[in-house]
Amino acid sequence: MSTNILRKFDLFTDQWSPKIIGELNGQQLKLAKIQGEFVWHDHADEDELFLVYKGTLYLDFRDRETVTLRPGECYIVPKGVAHFPRTKDNMEVWLMLIEPASTKHTGEVQTERTVEQCEWI
Amino acid sequence: MSTNILRKFDLFTDQWSPKIIGELNGQQLKLAKIQGEFVWHDHADEDELFLVYKGTLYLDFRDRETVTLRPGECYIVPKGVAHFPRTKDNMEVWLMLIEPASTKHTGEVQTERTVEQCEWI
Repeated sequence: MSTNILRKFDLFTDQWSPKIIGELNGQQLKLAKIQGEFVWHDHADEDELFLVYKGTLYLDFRDRETVTLRPGECYIVPKGVAHFPRTKDNMEVWLMLIEPASTKHTGEVQTERTVEQCEWI
Repeated sequence: MSTNILRKFDLFTDQWSPKIIGELNGQQLKLAKIQGEFVWHDHADEDELFLVYKGTLYLDFRDRETVTLRPGECYIVPKGVAHFPRTKDNMEVWLMLIEPASTKHTGEVQTERTVEQCEWI
């Protein structure tokens, strides 16, 4: 059966807790709702794709300009590159992540935001 | 810099010739415009994701029901599963593919549709 991505967003309301909607070749497709600031982290061995469905996502970097992502826009954060996802103005952002199943949510950083095991929806 | 997916579709008009817009963890993101019928084929070692942006895509299978994909809907064809992508009623369909960089366009089948090397846009 096909997966309707926007309808999948209706299945959860909790923020900062990515949900898995598919897997291919060891990569997982995850949906997340976020609002506010995440934490600085990197993934030593995993590239990570961010694709925005709603709202405006900002990705800060230590070594390059902030990337602004609006609906329909995507960006691939290369492995090893520290990044800081955030939103502005109390806006909730809906996004898709694509990353290896092995990816730790906040890299080697442990915070109150860290989700150990993402749920399938 | 971010990638605006819909704008990327404006950069080409040729059908059945996927264009690469990104790569992560050995997987490539490709955009394609298709109209009519492709060929029966499978990819022995690669799962393949289809995500539709415009029009209606039909995926026929030998061992399961036809999958219908409308904009915002996706489907992952598991490795080894023969599939036949097609459109109906002279409708052009715009879609994103995600698959390993190693994936051959028409699997082990060689046809007039086969593209040996996809171009980056």
